[in-house]
Amino acid sequence: MLDLIYTGKMALLTDLYQITMAYGYWKMGRVEDDAVFHLFYRRAPFGGSYAIACGLEMVVDYLSNFRFEEDDIEYLATLTGNDGFPLFEKGFLDYLRDLELDCDIAAVPEGTVTFPYEPILRVKGSLIQCQLLETPLLNIINFQTLCATKASRICDAAQGEPVFEFGLRRAQGIDGALAASRAAYIGGCIATSNVLAGKLFGIPVKGTHAHSWVMSFDSEEEAFQQYAEAMPNNCVFLVDTYNTIEGVKNAVKMGRKLRERGHEMVGIRLDSGDMAELSRKARDILDEGGFPDARIVASNDLDEHAITDLKQRGAKIGIWGVGTKLVTAYDQPALGGVYKLSAIKRSGGAWEDRVKLSEEKIKVSNPGMQQVRRYKDSDGFFIGDGIYDERTPPQGKSCFSDVAMPDRQWDVNADVQYEDLLVPVFEQGQCVYTLPGLNDIQARSLEQLNSLRQAYRKQTDAASYFVGLEESLDQLKNRLIAEKVK
Amino acid sequence: MLDLIYTGKMALLTDLYQITMAYGYWKMGRVEDDAVFHLFYRRAPFGGSYAIACGLEMVVDYLSNFRFEEDDIEYLATLTGNDGFPLFEKGFLDYLRDLELDCDIAAVPEGTVTFPYEPILRVKGSLIQCQLLETPLLNIINFQTLCATKASRICDAAQGEPVFEFGLRRAQGIDGALAASRAAYIGGCIATSNVLAGKLFGIPVKGTHAHSWVMSFDSEEEAFQQYAEAMPNNCVFLVDTYNTIEGVKNAVKMGRKLRERGHEMVGIRLDSGDMAELSRKARDILDEGGFPDARIVASNDLDEHAITDLKQRGAKIGIWGVGTKLVTAYDQPALGGVYKLSAIKRSGGAWEDRVKLSEEKIKVSNPGMQQVRRYKDSDGFFIGDGIYDERTPPQGKSCFSDVAMPDRQWDVNADVQYEDLLVPVFEQGQCVYTLPGLNDIQARSLEQLNSLRQAYRKQTDAASYFVGLEESLDQLKNRLIAEKVK
Repeated sequence: MLDLIYTGKMALLTDLYQITMAYGYWKMGRVEDDAVFHLFYRRAPFGGSYAIACGLEMVVDYLSNFRFEEDDIEYLATLTGNDGFPLFEKGFLDYLRDLELDCDIAAVPEGTVTFPYEPILRVKGSLIQCQLLETPLLNIINFQTLCATKASRICDAAQGEPVFEFGLRRAQGIDGALAASRAAYIGGCIATSNVLAGKLFGIPVKGTHAHSWVMSFDSEEEAFQQYAEAMPNNCVFLVDTYNTIEGVKNAVKMGRKLRERGHEMVGIRLDSGDMAELSRKARDILDEGGFPDARIVASNDLDEHAITDLKQRGAKIGIWGVGTKLVTAYDQPALGGVYKLSAIKRSGGAWEDRVKLSEEKIKVSNPGMQQVRRYKDSDGFFIGDGIYDERTPPQGKSCFSDVAMPDRQWDVNADVQYEDLLVPVFEQGQCVYTLPGLNDIQARSLEQLNSLRQAYRKQTDAASYFVGLEESLDQLKNRLIAEKVK
Repeated sequence: MLDLIYTGKMALLTDLYQITMAYGYWKMGRVEDDAVFHLFYRRAPFGGSYAIACGLEMVVDYLSNFRFEEDDIEYLATLTGNDGFPLFEKGFLDYLRDLELDCDIAAVPEGTVTFPYEPILRVKGSLIQCQLLETPLLNIINFQTLCATKASRICDAAQGEPVFEFGLRRAQGIDGALAASRAAYIGGCIATSNVLAGKLFGIPVKGTHAHSWVMSFDSEEEAFQQYAEAMPNNCVFLVDTYNTIEGVKNAVKMGRKLRERGHEMVGIRLDSGDMAELSRKARDILDEGGFPDARIVASNDLDEHAITDLKQRGAKIGIWGVGTKLVTAYDQPALGGVYKLSAIKRSGGAWEDRVKLSEEKIKVSNPGMQQVRRYKDSDGFFIGDGIYDERTPPQGKSCFSDVAMPDRQWDVNADVQYEDLLVPVFEQGQCVYTLPGLNDIQARSLEQLNSLRQAYRKQTDAASYFVGLEESLDQLKNRLIAEKVK
């Protein structure tokens, strides 16, 4: 499905330092060393509490096509160091040419609500492979998770009213737009203007006409008339080319003519001005004109805050068209997800756990082979998550220490319902995961959001959801820190 | 070069309303109507005065490959209106299948400094074609221009010190990263970490090692030692995995061993903490250790403001690694460029000029067939730009009215040097433009920036550069507005 973007020649979509490190490991004979890395973020975006995991399907596609092509090898052979000599020996390039992924990858399914510090994805296997994959995994997951989360917040603000994604013209590049359309749908949007996204992903597409249509005629009335002639079954009239109120009146006139021909106009679109006031006036004109079912679509720099504000001000808007601020995640255009080493195994040796220290406490990484357990109350609401090491799973009653505030502890009884979030995706390089359909992913994201109490869904200053480290993992972390700072 | 991304199947990369409008024009027999559209922005990004035009090469690639494929047609045939009947008649789909671009396109060369309201690109020809191209042209030009501008500002802040682009992991999608790497190079960056961008565009690639390299060994010292063994000609040691100052000392030790083997370390990299203070301390340790030429690379959420601040605080940083905030244009992640109809010609008729009104004065569009004339003083500095209609070019002494403040007028004598910015790119659908090489484009952007006086290069509250409408174009605009509001 995505071969349009991923033609299979993407192994070089990585930072050079991944390849220089791979070379270093190869050169030192460490090709048999294994490692574990986790991909996670440290702070939920947009002042909220959560992020919606997204991008796994592209990750599967990327990994399934991963290989170094001959022209990639030729390119790498041209790179030189500060002495003008090649960076890489031929033997290493031969190694890359023959490289086949054989690592294990587990991931949180797309559409899942996630919280800070929880691995969204875990890679276990060849140290070299783990390293080469870091950058593309971050690129794919960071952006799509960010965008699905933004869509989730916007749809939450729309309180069940339909949200359309219209962002292609302002998106950050072509798959900045395509990936955003898909992520927006997962977050809860019900349609896109992007026809290619519609074709590739099966997302419903929506669109009628622009200001230029109106301007290409001598009058707005003629423009609406001709549009209705051409497409009587797709009439949303854009009313603000010259004067919004006159535009609504012209739309009503045209709606009557359409009705005489057996068609109903869908509605009107507002694209400028004070949309709270204009939508109320437009609603009155439509209702009085005999079109109580005609929808009012709004589109002009909308996001969750603008929608909430318009609703509070009594706007009569039925469909929200959201573009730039959704697809670019305007108020926070990067997630800041990271990918950290947590354990290493020298060839023939045992696993050794690792932490990275930092002067900033929240930047100290968590060690081990992590899994996330989500606990739920009897109504199905999420009550707290625990990160544990798969080698020491919680048995019976469990105790967790808050990752960000270790003094805050939480005891969980053995009978509390839970779900482990990371599922196997690749085992020894083979895909073992059945990709869900897009509608199922969207349904999951909506269901997950509804399992989150309102305090965690606030647009700003959302409550901080409990994410803890299981007791034995917490002890391991403290021991490793003590060893490093001694 | 770009067939990786553009495999030629991109005609559907547009908003549905472009296709519904095209259908409307087709249905009404307006396939022979012509139009003129201009692509421009209304406000320079980031609080600056200018933007660096970027993206034309991808536009040329996109247009050269433009056609509706059979599966595009099949997909469009599945779309339905609110009555469940197809949106499009078969005759229209046949029309699209046979469609070949034959319009004229003029554009400002990549690397050119542009200002608000000035067309970056002009499309003239079939109304239907103009409309279908709107969205992809905006997608490509908006983002790349934004990103080249951000890079230009960052490099300006670095005052000639090298800037590397490291943004792949946080970019908005795959070509959000690739296009950003290219735009960043055009804006003045001298290297990227993105290996695929290096291969595709010929941009120098840079990279050494990450924290995970250090963590995969028992000690930092061993990690540096082994790195130096493997790649003696590419040694920049990342020093902050455990303790920055100790890290610098370890780097000095390793630098000495390297030197004994006939190699020079390139330098160290700081990635956290107070980089003004740490860089000064590191500089002292390196100097005292016998490495006055070792470079200090800094990378941690840098942008033009952070660089300026670090310089003011006496940081001793020689190379700036810039990532997230550059490639996502973090503080303003969309340019807001628009594409407006300015004239229309019915089949067999004459050209009719058009404006779009708006309650917001700056949103009233400019009519005609626009060209931009840039005037220069005898030192080559830009002194002001005038937008004129190609049908009424300035003759002798010219008078311009400020686009944003029409009362502000400017008279230009006939002997002032000037350059017309828009050059022909496609004529009747055929490419007539020779694409410059990437290094030439970068050289142009740097030269253009140096032709801009400091007041226009300020990071915030930059002076507003004069952009005027030539007298007769201004009169045309006023006449059209008067006709519409009467």
